Amino acid sequence: MLQSPVSQAQGVTERLARFVVDTRWDDLEPPVPLQAKRSLMNFFAVALTGCHDRTIETALQTLAAFSGGKQATIVGRRERIDALSAAFLNAAGANVLDFCDTHVPTAIHPTAPVVPALLALAEMMPVSGRDFLLALVLGHEVECRIGVAMSPSHYKKGWHITSTCGVFGAAVGAGKLLGLNARQMVWALGTAATQSGGLCECLGTPAKSVSVGNAARNGLLSALLASKNFDGPPEPITGVQGYYHAMNETPDLSWLTQNLGETWEILGTAYKPYPCGFVIHPVLDCILDWRRPNPTAVVEKVVVTGNPLLAARTDRPNISTGREAQVSTQHAVAAALITGKAGVDEFTDACVNDPKVLALRTKVSVVRDERFQTISAAAEITTADGKSHKVSTEAARGSESNPMSDKELEDKLRTAAAGAIPGKNVTPLIDAIWQLDTSGDISKLASLTAPRD
Amino acid sequence: MLQSPVSQAQGVTERLARFVVDTRWDDLEPPVPLQAKRSLMNFFAVALTGCHDRTIETALQTLAAFSGGKQATIVGRRERIDALSAAFLNAAGANVLDFCDTHVPTAIHPTAPVVPALLALAEMMPVSGRDFLLALVLGHEVECRIGVAMSPSHYKKGWHITSTCGVFGAAVGAGKLLGLNARQMVWALGTAATQSGGLCECLGTPAKSVSVGNAARNGLLSALLASKNFDGPPEPITGVQGYYHAMNETPDLSWLTQNLGETWEILGTAYKPYPCGFVIHPVLDCILDWRRPNPTAVVEKVVVTGNPLLAARTDRPNISTGREAQVSTQHAVAAALITGKAGVDEFTDACVNDPKVLALRTKVSVVRDERFQTISAAAEITTADGKSHKVSTEAARGSESNPMSDKELEDKLRTAAAGAIPGKNVTPLIDAIWQLDTSGDISKLASLTAPRD
Repeated sequence: MLQSPVSQAQGVTERLARFVVDTRWDDLEPPVPLQAKRSLMNFFAVALTGCHDRTIETALQTLAAFSGGKQATIVGRRERIDALSAAFLNAAGANVLDFCDTHVPTAIHPTAPVVPALLALAEMMPVSGRDFLLALVLGHEVECRIGVAMSPSHYKKGWHITSTCGVFGAAVGAGKLLGLNARQMVWALGTAATQSGGLCECLGTPAKSVSVGNAARNGLLSALLASKNFDGPPEPITGVQGYYHAMNETPDLSWLTQNLGETWEILGTAYKPYPCGFVIHPVLDCILDWRRPNPTAVVEKVVVTGNPLLAARTDRPNISTGREAQVSTQHAVAAALITGKAGVDEFTDACVNDPKVLALRTKVSVVRDERFQTISAAAEITTADGKSHKVSTEAARGSESNPMSDKELEDKLRTAAAGAIPGKNVTPLIDAIWQLDTSGDISKLASLTAPRD
Repeated sequence: MLQSPVSQAQGVTERLARFVVDTRWDDLEPPVPLQAKRSLMNFFAVALTGCHDRTIETALQTLAAFSGGKQATIVGRRERIDALSAAFLNAAGANVLDFCDTHVPTAIHPTAPVVPALLALAEMMPVSGRDFLLALVLGHEVECRIGVAMSPSHYKKGWHITSTCGVFGAAVGAGKLLGLNARQMVWALGTAATQSGGLCECLGTPAKSVSVGNAARNGLLSALLASKNFDGPPEPITGVQGYYHAMNETPDLSWLTQNLGETWEILGTAYKPYPCGFVIHPVLDCILDWRRPNPTAVVEKVVVTGNPLLAARTDRPNISTGREAQVSTQHAVAAALITGKAGVDEFTDACVNDPKVLALRTKVSVVRDERFQTISAAAEITTADGKSHKVSTEAARGSESNPMSDKELEDKLRTAAAGAIPGKNVTPLIDAIWQLDTSGDISKLASLTAPRD
């Protein structure tokens, strides 16, 4: 039967819901669960990196006063908390230092909102490794497709796309674990849609972490409510007053439903070697590659050229906190030139306020050039001897075409664990992740990050 | 010093914050606290009306599994729950039956998100009646001003303005009780802004209640986080990637700051005699006034004419639930013609599926006419004898120019209590509300709605 555009629009949320409900482990081609494990490895690395951040400490202290029971693990910490708050804190913690994975077509950090909702549920009910990985893949798929359909306009408007789309991913993933039927899945998506929020204006401040935490918590809540037949509208995403309408988007809806089950958005995910905004990564590759053979050169001026998004998000010469540094090209370049590194220590308040870094920051400028992709960049470095040095990269380390290896992801987790849970042996965690599809019950997975007694 | 438009825009959030922090009880002219008491009376009436709704039962059951302690009252119920969840449930419950107060210029239901946040706090810390009323007034002021500046475009885009603006009101009110300084108040507004959400697509379904509940809960959370110096951006509302920008609004910012402390938005609040969308109220006045002397007339056709918002929101001939009935002019007219009433019983699933009501619904149509205000309407009723009867009203009962009296508000509360907490004497609650400005500690106020033992 021929479908009119209207009836296609009307069926979009239901088609997504049916896809999620009907998809089984055996439908996933082998690269898909492998990438899910890599995303999970990266998740634990970044959640460990962020778990003692001041933002997380304050949020934990605030939420603990209202929390019941100790249902769920807070990654890397001794404290336990209720499952909704654990989802909030682990999502906020994973994203707090901007060290997350990135879905390249949208700039969504897809795992931070999804995995915490699933881990929290897995401590409340029996969940197998395969069910967990499948839920993770499906959560990614729906959150990223909803984002792709409104990219790049949505993010440009100032919406923090990880938060606004993450709530759908958490709802879908949690809903899959809870065994929702298609109708309930539509309701979960509706309750997620009406909770979607988060502003780019908050980037670089603790407030950003609240919308990311909410994405996980509220997605989980949406699925839990739907499992109790808490209903919503039939077409929350594409309805006349629905999500896209409110967001002032009129997307091509085929982005949502074309090739469902044939292509997988999780395969478009990149992982970060540096704990800062991913658009800065190709810049850091250029600077660090040049600095390696020139460790003592005195730099007078740096002109960075990159995709317009680089300037739009990170042209920030005047900053005072490590948090702001994560989205400052000027700082990243200055710190990398002075220290030769771009790790967690280079994005602290101390480094930002180091007089040497401060002085060099004023010599860095950012130029927009639409010919650059977000994963490419160039830099012209002028040294005190008057010489000009040109460096460039086509594909940043960690990007899709230059991906981090499995071993590099393991190392990222080990480095994070050494800082967050010193002395703890994380080999059991790493092994458990690679072997997740053979586990019948993953309830102990998150608690493998508990600090050593 | 002259201020450029840019510097004015930059100072907007801070000016609102300073106004909230600096305003004292003595700054309120007598009509203002009186209206705050009337809003509170109406709040308890509507919260009692909604407290046993299926939506609230499910939400309570879901949240209770994660809740710690029994810090706070759920209006009209025996259960107690943590303060954040109480704020959620009481806001959702107060709004669930669309029986709330309405800020006429914006269609915001201002009290439902604000008062629950304040009541929850008042059970955690000492709060005087005057501080409570002042926080209520200031919460209204800021949420309604933020809404006025983007009205009517924001609501037309499909944003549920009670939810999207309510979170600011709850943050401001709770922040005032917590004694935030101006910087912290800006942070609270930023954390509120990044949590703002809610879609009109969900109207008529339980999903709507989630965004209303979130407005109260997340506003309270924003203030609590700010009190612990959890910071945010300096200009969340008018910043380059801030709230209005993301919402695709370029408002005249003078709406936010002009005459602060001289005019009071709470004085523009109307209360509802009927438990349904306020745009239907003038229609019900017409129908009930006509039906009173014509109780046995057989109606063949009704044509309702009203403001375009009436048709946009409530032209819904095909409905199947009481929830949908709240926003269906066809149902309201049919039920009122058949029963002669428009109370809670006329907006139940049972009434919606009554064959007589169903049959009459098909004979009702809605016509848009921009010459009508939202508080005015006309109806042409054709009876079986072929006669045509024209009725109209300029100002609906309960609207600003035809307000409900103090006694009518008391009666509304008594009627609600008779249904929700039968046998309970609510005179102490009513007296406590009228005398609130003389109370040194209002911690027991909400619990005066507990069911009789």
